[in-house]
Amino acid sequence: MGKNKSVEESGKSSRLERKKPGVGGWGGVKEQDKLSVGFVEALKVIVGSPHVSTAAAVREQHGHDESMHRCRPPDAVVWPQNVEQVSRLAALCYGQGVPIIPFGTGTGLEGGVCAVQGGVCINLTHMDRILELNPEDFSVVVEPGVTRKALNRHLRDSGLWFPVDPGADASLCGMAATGASGTNAVRYGTMRDNVLNLEVVLPDGRLLHTAGCGRHFRKSAAGYNLTGLFVGSEGTLGLITSATLRLHPAPEATVAATCAFPTIQAAVDSTVHILQAAVPVARIEFLDDVVMDACNRHSKMDCPVAPSLFLEFHGSAQALAEQLQRAEEIAQYHGASHFSWAKEAEERSRLWAARHNAWYAIMALRPGCKGYSTDVCVPISRLPEILVQTKEDLQASGLTGAILGHVGDGNFHCILLVDPEDAEEVGRLEAFAEQLGRRALALHGTCTGEHGIGLGKRQLLQEEVGAVAMEIMRQLKAGLDPRGLMNPGKVL
Amino acid sequence: MGKNKSVEESGKSSRLERKKPGVGGWGGVKEQDKLSVGFVEALKVIVGSPHVSTAAAVREQHGHDESMHRCRPPDAVVWPQNVEQVSRLAALCYGQGVPIIPFGTGTGLEGGVCAVQGGVCINLTHMDRILELNPEDFSVVVEPGVTRKALNRHLRDSGLWFPVDPGADASLCGMAATGASGTNAVRYGTMRDNVLNLEVVLPDGRLLHTAGCGRHFRKSAAGYNLTGLFVGSEGTLGLITSATLRLHPAPEATVAATCAFPTIQAAVDSTVHILQAAVPVARIEFLDDVVMDACNRHSKMDCPVAPSLFLEFHGSAQALAEQLQRAEEIAQYHGASHFSWAKEAEERSRLWAARHNAWYAIMALRPGCKGYSTDVCVPISRLPEILVQTKEDLQASGLTGAILGHVGDGNFHCILLVDPEDAEEVGRLEAFAEQLGRRALALHGTCTGEHGIGLGKRQLLQEEVGAVAMEIMRQLKAGLDPRGLMNPGKVL
Repeated sequence: MGKNKSVEESGKSSRLERKKPGVGGWGGVKEQDKLSVGFVEALKVIVGSPHVSTAAAVREQHGHDESMHRCRPPDAVVWPQNVEQVSRLAALCYGQGVPIIPFGTGTGLEGGVCAVQGGVCINLTHMDRILELNPEDFSVVVEPGVTRKALNRHLRDSGLWFPVDPGADASLCGMAATGASGTNAVRYGTMRDNVLNLEVVLPDGRLLHTAGCGRHFRKSAAGYNLTGLFVGSEGTLGLITSATLRLHPAPEATVAATCAFPTIQAAVDSTVHILQAAVPVARIEFLDDVVMDACNRHSKMDCPVAPSLFLEFHGSAQALAEQLQRAEEIAQYHGASHFSWAKEAEERSRLWAARHNAWYAIMALRPGCKGYSTDVCVPISRLPEILVQTKEDLQASGLTGAILGHVGDGNFHCILLVDPEDAEEVGRLEAFAEQLGRRALALHGTCTGEHGIGLGKRQLLQEEVGAVAMEIMRQLKAGLDPRGLMNPGKVL
Repeated sequence: MGKNKSVEESGKSSRLERKKPGVGGWGGVKEQDKLSVGFVEALKVIVGSPHVSTAAAVREQHGHDESMHRCRPPDAVVWPQNVEQVSRLAALCYGQGVPIIPFGTGTGLEGGVCAVQGGVCINLTHMDRILELNPEDFSVVVEPGVTRKALNRHLRDSGLWFPVDPGADASLCGMAATGASGTNAVRYGTMRDNVLNLEVVLPDGRLLHTAGCGRHFRKSAAGYNLTGLFVGSEGTLGLITSATLRLHPAPEATVAATCAFPTIQAAVDSTVHILQAAVPVARIEFLDDVVMDACNRHSKMDCPVAPSLFLEFHGSAQALAEQLQRAEEIAQYHGASHFSWAKEAEERSRLWAARHNAWYAIMALRPGCKGYSTDVCVPISRLPEILVQTKEDLQASGLTGAILGHVGDGNFHCILLVDPEDAEEVGRLEAFAEQLGRRALALHGTCTGEHGIGLGKRQLLQEEVGAVAMEIMRQLKAGLDPRGLMNPGKVL
């Protein structure tokens, strides 16, 4: 594995190890330095020669996600075409003691696909069928290659949609594996709330249907909730080969709105007030003054440079008018200004441009830098204090960063800019992110609202859940994956 | 244990073994025939003498729930006053190899509290404090003695409520243990969706906080979902000693409505149509012609004797008017008649009287009989066929029964009347219930939507989830309860 010391070798993994492009690729990958020729042949027998690669470029591409975690390439990448092949691949790897890493769109943010112990990366994107749509039952069964946008395109004329939206066009099974959520969670819930059943290939190749084969009922009290156990397990317990998802009626109409506040406290108070008033807001996003300023510069806009809320409402025309009016009254009560709203798709896009382009606008603050996103979530009442602390910490750290978040859930992201070649700056970023995680824990929060634990937050997880919960998680892992080969080095 | 053979002794448990009042109590309980005097003394040291009982009457009272499962009294009942005592009790029992059975309000419907192997029943109702209310965070922490009605009384002036409503005034921690739901689930979800964190005493006495001590965030992607694992585990993995629950804004206004349909199909089609139209119905209950007839007789009403829907809407006055109009239009499109609605609390109660009194009205069809409730749940599109089949099966069985259900979730109950002294009739009832369970499974459904597996549905659970899922459930159980002492004989 060239210069890359494994997590186990180094004893401690840096949260944000630097990618080293150039020297033999990111991290100096050599061709196929671990797997025997015979093993690679066995992979080819299962999936066919064209669907196995040990080329350095391919391995590099599969050794990282969108985070700053250093590329850790697998030793081989395979593309199974069906669940039987996934099962045979798992059984082969498990029998030979080779690590297995599931791979979807690679859009994760916590290094979940990094092959820290090498092994075989199972790229599931060739399995991309929508297997079953049950419009009357509000359910659909998708293979792991189906992304959320592809599903929603497929659903376009059905009057239904799948609302969980983490931003990236991630695969739905990957979103299930991560326990993803995003902007719509305040109204429609997270993946935890919207997965009805999973087909999982266990590390040893056995096939599990978490809620029973082919079942897609809306609720059940039958036995332990295995679906819930696999959602958010980050590929460490098995490979998700299909997901049965809960669909929702497509909104009859949509209205977007934005407004600016004198203080962070006022923006959060408005949010709580809107939720308490049972306004069924579909999205309620917070953007701080830095994001707004960045957006103004980047998109040549003229938004107020102030803490802002971006809202979206779903419903009938009549219901929307009422929701909008209530939200505006509440916001104004808390000192909001510049309340704007838009109904037509194009107008809505323009109004929400700052939110949609926030990532690129922030990136443009320091061209050439990489972005890193923190992901804490706290009880909403504690949001003002942690947001104020975070802005102070940010200033003290000397880092460039901006804050946005799913304020209705108490979940926010601090987007930090860093030169990955600058070890000192990377160190400051790591310290900042860790401090933020601890601040969230101190306020009864979690170190990750939606990105998962992956590689970088394992220490924080221990602090968050405590020794007994960790012991039970380890026991669950050991029971399902006694050889520790399923996406090793993640979560625990 | 007198005449009572344990499940293990008899090899097979009858679903509905008859209670035998008279001969030494239900099942012939003798005083304290298993636990040593020393052990009982040790219990008393932990909780204090007045909080331990081995009296036959007390043990009998704790040996059954509201189901027809035969009374299986524990050997002793203890009332701990705090979590430390629960922990010490568990450690004592576990160390001595004595079964532990958690007990709340005893309102379960699947024999979950029956002490099939004797042991110590831990009655948690003395721990009845509401520990923490966080109105801004929409969360509350309750001890196991707090019932849902007690919580909602406490919340009366807060503008919040806890909507999960299984009918009985069950304890909230018991509802978490069972994975309860009920009439509001179609809008507000089940316990699985509304438990944020659990404090659990593990069988060996260790204390677990499933989402970390004191945490009450709204969402998280941190590690395996232990909260989800314990919700619905029916006391077989540990004792829930507090639950952090998600609260909802109390509805600003409520409207109730009822209507009658020419066929079951029309009632179900209306339901699907209402859900597809995104009308945020809070309750949508189905009552068949038999229930309606029984209610007319019992409550001297004059409702149409036809398949009927009972609806409830929550929202602002303006939103309600629109919801009501849409629902009425849809129902009428599907041939509904007698559409009535009511706004004021008293009127609403009168309108919904048939639903509220359904159990008693059905019981009155054959005075002196016991009631047994089936609990299957199917994809909503399969409801008409299973309801029609069930009515035919009912007729063929010669049993008296009526159907009602949470039709928006595909979950329905067949309430059967049986003379518990008539072995032949009990046999027919068992056969009917089993057939219904298998019909639900054949239609991609579940054998229990909300009552749980308990004693009677263990065989159906195996058929529902399959061998691999059963193996994993057994493994989870063995990991957390290696001696098999935690509510033994249930679920698995």
